[in-house]
Amino acid sequence: MTHNEISSLADINRTSPIGIFDSGIGGLTVLKEIWHTLPGESTIYFGDNGRQPYGSKSHDTIVKYSTEIMRFLESKHVKMIVIACNSASSHAYETLCRISKVPVVEVITPGARQAAKRTRNGKIGIIATRATVTSGVYNSAVVQAAKNLINDESPNSEVLRSLEVREVACPLFASLAEEGWWDTPVTRMVAETYLQTLIESGTDTLVLGCTHYPLLRDVISGVMGENTLLIDSGSSVAEKVRDVLDKNHLMNDGSTLPTYQFYTSDDPHMFENMATPFLGGGRPSGTCYVSTDSFREE
Amino acid sequence: MTHNEISSLADINRTSPIGIFDSGIGGLTVLKEIWHTLPGESTIYFGDNGRQPYGSKSHDTIVKYSTEIMRFLESKHVKMIVIACNSASSHAYETLCRISKVPVVEVITPGARQAAKRTRNGKIGIIATRATVTSGVYNSAVVQAAKNLINDESPNSEVLRSLEVREVACPLFASLAEEGWWDTPVTRMVAETYLQTLIESGTDTLVLGCTHYPLLRDVISGVMGENTLLIDSGSSVAEKVRDVLDKNHLMNDGSTLPTYQFYTSDDPHMFENMATPFLGGGRPSGTCYVSTDSFREE
Repeated sequence: MTHNEISSLADINRTSPIGIFDSGIGGLTVLKEIWHTLPGESTIYFGDNGRQPYGSKSHDTIVKYSTEIMRFLESKHVKMIVIACNSASSHAYETLCRISKVPVVEVITPGARQAAKRTRNGKIGIIATRATVTSGVYNSAVVQAAKNLINDESPNSEVLRSLEVREVACPLFASLAEEGWWDTPVTRMVAETYLQTLIESGTDTLVLGCTHYPLLRDVISGVMGENTLLIDSGSSVAEKVRDVLDKNHLMNDGSTLPTYQFYTSDDPHMFENMATPFLGGGRPSGTCYVSTDSFREE
Repeated sequence: MTHNEISSLADINRTSPIGIFDSGIGGLTVLKEIWHTLPGESTIYFGDNGRQPYGSKSHDTIVKYSTEIMRFLESKHVKMIVIACNSASSHAYETLCRISKVPVVEVITPGARQAAKRTRNGKIGIIATRATVTSGVYNSAVVQAAKNLINDESPNSEVLRSLEVREVACPLFASLAEEGWWDTPVTRMVAETYLQTLIESGTDTLVLGCTHYPLLRDVISGVMGENTLLIDSGSSVAEKVRDVLDKNHLMNDGSTLPTYQFYTSDDPHMFENMATPFLGGGRPSGTCYVSTDSFREE
């Protein structure tokens, strides 16, 4: 893809940071995987907490906000941008690819590919925000991934020929994750309600299509049953990031120690207080406030 | 209060509209009451859907957004401003009173007064967003209202001397209301969890301290039991609006037919689609989009 190939940009080199953004704190689950897969890389994370969530907002608004954040990250001389938010990926990826000076990675395709590769009965479920489901992008990505696998004569080609993709919007899941109700009777009942049609239709592979959902993994897995494989795209996204860096000769050569910066458009202390479970136990420090007013001047 | 008395402002007169704002659609429950109480008045409603909700955001961010919206409404020559959002009322009312050119009405005090007036055992509960609870404003307002009633030798003065106010943040209630899960087993279970301590402590009067909560009235009432009185401040706010207009000689004299305008910072169709239950069945039309970018130029 041409947008993943850049020539040379004066202020960018192998030691430049990777820019990662999300509507808030959910994208930290992706950041954690990037740190794990690429321990030598510096990162700049932006959480748009002042305007979160994106999952209930419109296409135009999500594109506008994502574009502003891309410009902000470019002003910090990032060498690539990771849209660590499914709602932003599904609505703003095309726009960002077109106008970004650096490679852009989204979180939809890696999860869709994983799902198509690993299903044994061709029945794939996607759970996500309303904005993501409305976009239809996951459905297209899974269908495309299945076509590619059939062309490559993948072992599960036969079941992929009768592919069934079901998308279900689960707006309350993100609220439950932020409330810290990761494994409560309420969460279980909400999951039973949302997932009913996916269970009845025999879904064997379920994509967690929102960066908040890995926190509810135990409940979702319990409700779907042990025969359903859950796909959390975080690790596949990190692998994609590695591939793109490699292809563009942008992998850090180890000459500098990595640094980790955090920015939020709301209160930094609130951000840090909420971040820990999403980072798997770590806590960011030195988070800076950035007013979204400033984005237009960047 | 001096902020409720204005002298003369060139473009404002009796026929000017009342400006009402909320983080999104919840404030429509207040608008409905204003229409009911003041059928001759024109209104301009602004819903900040592009940045909603406010209930999980910080003090500074809520003050900043509320100030921007106040300026926008002033540019539309409103004769008064109603902060139809508990989170914004509890954090931004003081600031808005100080800088607004027109009278400002908030939604906390009217509900707090009602609760203090009507409790029979002095045990008052407040349910609200995390931002509202953190501010402590409801607690202060109820305590102040109780003091005033004791000074006035109100019939329930004796119980007010041993006043107990309990505030509980119920972040999932607004999400449930927006999801349309007004009366489901999940909503009931969430209510049982949140309201447990209020039931155990013998709360006889409960303030619905978020404009979304009237939609969950049946469930909340069912869980609290028939001996608990629920206070929805909408109608008291409308009466307060009438008093302030009257005091400032700004009541519409009936020479013009009222008009109703709606603005939102996200997609107008999404706004209108979600508005109906909050307006009690009516549906706004002709809603205009306003970018929050424009607020700084207003």
